[in-house]
Amino acid sequence: MKIEEALHMVGGAGENSYASNSRLQEKAILRTKDIVEKALTNIYGEVVPESLVVADLGCSSGPNAFLVISQIMGAVIGSKAKEIMFLLNDLPGNDFNTIFQSLSGYEKKFKKEKGDQVLPYYVAGVPGSFYGRLFPANSLHFAHSSYSLMWLSQAPVGLESGGVPLNKGNIYISKTSPPIVSRLYLQQFNRDFSTFLKLRSQELINGGQMVLSFLGRKSSDPSEAEVCHLWGLVAQALNSMVHEGLLKEEKVDTFNMPFYGASTDEVKQVIQSEGSFYLDQMQILESNWDPFDDSINEDQQVFDNVKSGENVAKCIRAVLEPLIVGHFGEAIVDQVFERYAKNVAMHLLKEKTKHVVFILALKTKKVKN
Amino acid sequence: MKIEEALHMVGGAGENSYASNSRLQEKAILRTKDIVEKALTNIYGEVVPESLVVADLGCSSGPNAFLVISQIMGAVIGSKAKEIMFLLNDLPGNDFNTIFQSLSGYEKKFKKEKGDQVLPYYVAGVPGSFYGRLFPANSLHFAHSSYSLMWLSQAPVGLESGGVPLNKGNIYISKTSPPIVSRLYLQQFNRDFSTFLKLRSQELINGGQMVLSFLGRKSSDPSEAEVCHLWGLVAQALNSMVHEGLLKEEKVDTFNMPFYGASTDEVKQVIQSEGSFYLDQMQILESNWDPFDDSINEDQQVFDNVKSGENVAKCIRAVLEPLIVGHFGEAIVDQVFERYAKNVAMHLLKEKTKHVVFILALKTKKVKN
Repeated sequence: MKIEEALHMVGGAGENSYASNSRLQEKAILRTKDIVEKALTNIYGEVVPESLVVADLGCSSGPNAFLVISQIMGAVIGSKAKEIMFLLNDLPGNDFNTIFQSLSGYEKKFKKEKGDQVLPYYVAGVPGSFYGRLFPANSLHFAHSSYSLMWLSQAPVGLESGGVPLNKGNIYISKTSPPIVSRLYLQQFNRDFSTFLKLRSQELINGGQMVLSFLGRKSSDPSEAEVCHLWGLVAQALNSMVHEGLLKEEKVDTFNMPFYGASTDEVKQVIQSEGSFYLDQMQILESNWDPFDDSINEDQQVFDNVKSGENVAKCIRAVLEPLIVGHFGEAIVDQVFERYAKNVAMHLLKEKTKHVVFILALKTKKVKN
Repeated sequence: MKIEEALHMVGGAGENSYASNSRLQEKAILRTKDIVEKALTNIYGEVVPESLVVADLGCSSGPNAFLVISQIMGAVIGSKAKEIMFLLNDLPGNDFNTIFQSLSGYEKKFKKEKGDQVLPYYVAGVPGSFYGRLFPANSLHFAHSSYSLMWLSQAPVGLESGGVPLNKGNIYISKTSPPIVSRLYLQQFNRDFSTFLKLRSQELINGGQMVLSFLGRKSSDPSEAEVCHLWGLVAQALNSMVHEGLLKEEKVDTFNMPFYGASTDEVKQVIQSEGSFYLDQMQILESNWDPFDDSINEDQQVFDNVKSGENVAKCIRAVLEPLIVGHFGEAIVDQVFERYAKNVAMHLLKEKTKHVVFILALKTKKVKN
């Protein structure tokens, strides 16, 4: 199954849906507010589009898709914009129907909150991978992407070469992975992020801006990244099921996350060598694994590790379930995430690991004819 | 329930879906080919958009949404267009997920048929009523709408005034309707079609064109329209269920189709008084009720009236089911359409009634600053 078909957030609005389990991503969006406002001010400093065209790349379904709309609508109040077109993009398997059917409810909410200041706005859904072209040339003023660019277009090519899985027992880079695994992951990230920048520079007008936030890592060694634990604990759940004869070992050996947590240097390197954008600003945020743990102290204790384990598992399930089901089938999915919740709980006793989120503001460099 | 929530084609790809029962609409799209080509040639005669932006208003889900894309892509081969953006619009209840998930299959098909001549194209889904604004000002080059504009924004206001239903026993204009019923329907059509034209003229660039096809009537008397039979036979099915105590009479009395089959004069009158468009061309087509009956002879015999009754019922069910369910509930829907199929079969013995389809090519009149 192609990643483009398998990778999407859990649809609908049920208990396991992304819509109900996306607080982590919500927090990241809220924390980009100032950067988004500055980017929009910059756009209006250079060009004066009466109709501002904004793309949200990897919009998902559920409240976060609307949070982005709401944030941008708030940011342009008082500017020269007269109307806004929002182009909400995600992979074709994303639940666009749920977004579209919830729009009128959100519209009422905006109008109640912001009254007459709300500009006329239009919404379209754009299905497709952002590693391909999505929009006509020079048609966007502002592109936004939150919690999406750590997803690769595919698991690195070469991890399964000649029928021999190189990353046995793992589903992502780990301390036990041979060095070539990290190299293949980095190569895939470089290709994908570079493609992303090139395509967006074609779609953005001269003077257009982007604000991107995605998971990264603080360490230069990719096997020491915080996300290695995140996926390592999923691998641990899968391996325990292999051990008990519930899953075939080769199924785990051939499953590799289409995901990469880059370092700041790796990100800057791609931006520079691709060459279409200036990096205007880069911030690093940290966010507790448990989306409901808002404590900001540096202390290494998690208050209730069992509850936090369950919270993390729910949040990861809303994102990972379609990929797990695509590779392993429907039957095992409940068990995987039950075991995962316990593994996370155990891990949090040892270390209050955090997500590392990069926020980038980028400006088009090109000079157009 | 608001019409905007209740009116949509049956989703998915199952036996009763619109996707499987839309041959009638397919035939109409195929018959607009020459007019669409001419309109596109006109656009390129006046403006030279490198990225052609095309809206399909009331796109539905299923193969017809792609047929429009395919037809327009075929028509621009060899023109100055370099890429095309398709904005597929329908009400928020339309099954956009199914469209989006089928896109890659259709893309393969186009490429196989048309080879390297296929221009790069992008697709977005735009949820909302076309009786409201859908797109930024001056953002469209070409708007297309097939088999949609006979749907009103709502059943005429006033048909149920003061708790007394004026159109007892009917669900549309019939010989037994009091004259005020026709007047209220015409007023609603005038308001809606006029709104549609005004909004589209705001969205289209100067020099932009529209091709619209929708059901109309040949007779000047609206109670003699061909569609009166179409809905009259649904009313007959509902009334027979009232008679047998399966449905409450008042439920039927308060159900009125949000639909109007206009005459050519009524259509021209709105275009002229609204004033934003020139009517470039108007054609009238006729299409057998049975979408699988392609015979074009004028003889009044239907070959197999029972089979044709079933075919018509399937086609109408794919369109009408959500409205029936919205008003009467889920339980009765199978019975309504079983009875309807029989009523149609009986009717076809008497008269081989046809759908009357108008095809209009319109050109923006405005002069912009």
